[in-house]
Amino acid sequence: MAGKLYGVGIGPGDPELITIKARRIMGEADVIAVPKTADEKASVALEIALEATEQKKEILELLFPMSRDKELLAKSWESASAQIRERLDDGRDVAFITLGDPTIYSTYMYIHKKLLSDGYHAEVIPGVTSFCAAAAKAGISLGENNEAIAIIPSAYECKNMENIINDFNSIVLMKVWKDLDSMAAKLEGEGLLDKSVLISNCGMENEIVEYDWRSLRSEKISYFSTVIIKKNGVK
Amino acid sequence: MAGKLYGVGIGPGDPELITIKARRIMGEADVIAVPKTADEKASVALEIALEATEQKKEILELLFPMSRDKELLAKSWESASAQIRERLDDGRDVAFITLGDPTIYSTYMYIHKKLLSDGYHAEVIPGVTSFCAAAAKAGISLGENNEAIAIIPSAYECKNMENIINDFNSIVLMKVWKDLDSMAAKLEGEGLLDKSVLISNCGMENEIVEYDWRSLRSEKISYFSTVIIKKNGVK
Repeated sequence: MAGKLYGVGIGPGDPELITIKARRIMGEADVIAVPKTADEKASVALEIALEATEQKKEILELLFPMSRDKELLAKSWESASAQIRERLDDGRDVAFITLGDPTIYSTYMYIHKKLLSDGYHAEVIPGVTSFCAAAAKAGISLGENNEAIAIIPSAYECKNMENIINDFNSIVLMKVWKDLDSMAAKLEGEGLLDKSVLISNCGMENEIVEYDWRSLRSEKISYFSTVIIKKNGVK
Repeated sequence: MAGKLYGVGIGPGDPELITIKARRIMGEADVIAVPKTADEKASVALEIALEATEQKKEILELLFPMSRDKELLAKSWESASAQIRERLDDGRDVAFITLGDPTIYSTYMYIHKKLLSDGYHAEVIPGVTSFCAAAAKAGISLGENNEAIAIIPSAYECKNMENIINDFNSIVLMKVWKDLDSMAAKLEGEGLLDKSVLISNCGMENEIVEYDWRSLRSEKISYFSTVIIKKNGVK
């Protein structure tokens, strides 16, 4: 019988923020598959997964380029799917780990759909998102009562920020490290800079929670950085 | 020494989707505080918490009215804070449990801010949100690449739905049970009904995942119901 594929969210980085189910699945799986890109994500996720399982497993590193080139991406998904399929055909269960939650900006879901359509069994195990962990660390609500929340994965290329700023009380900006200065200037122009907080490396050793983040330099914060804006204030 | 307050997210309902940290905190705390309202939330959260701790604790039920009356709400927060403060002053740690994540539409954050400003120690333990669990169950991404995500807690009173539908590829509607028919009609008018999926009681016994949810009746689904809309489809 073919093995089963699991897309496992391992939470924001603190190994204690893994769910009981994710730990069980990683413990039972025969293979831990980990996405590897040019950034540091792969090693962080892998470290956390290995710490949680405490057992020797096959570690399958899957290369995904940091690219928007559709053909290149489709090739990498095809190659990753083929490597996973090989193990499933051997009757081995594969846990594909992902930082945060697999349904929030993760490569996993492409593989999931592909292997489901090939007739394999696949299941998504949700995890704690980085933005919830960031809000928890800052001690603020992302949403209260009937307030809507906007999650913007890369604000520097968001075409309708003005509308979103008008329509939402709470706005989460992910991956802000790419364009910190112009983001700060934009928020200052909207009168929102002092109603925002930046959280970097949440739950990790080099964590930063900074309300006055205008003077932070991109090199001081990591890929794992989030800005939370609340029109009614973040303090 | 005064005890410490923890706001503990216990995830969407499946006891295995509690984090290792949340389980540890609930196990170590002297008091489990649980918000109680007119709906069934309290008992579900409490059941899950008790299943996870397997120990006898003081259970402190805190009454919060389902109301928008600010004075009434402020009174209930004051009363809840006072009851928690009493236990903290006795040197007891209190775990205030919340379904999902404490930063997403939870009463906890009011208590958190109040007791922090009174000089007590308080910490938020993030959890898996209901909308991530719902997307995982339906096997779909909430966001891919540079797509923004909108979380709408109560669409029936959302004044700028048209803008949000224009600006976002992925829209999460929470608490849809209140006005299912008009929501379905609205989405049909926008050509989005067949690009949506309804998930009710995610991870619980009476779970429903329904793509063609137009004919569902409000009484068949629960308070814990979410509709996910994706303009590029949900299948």
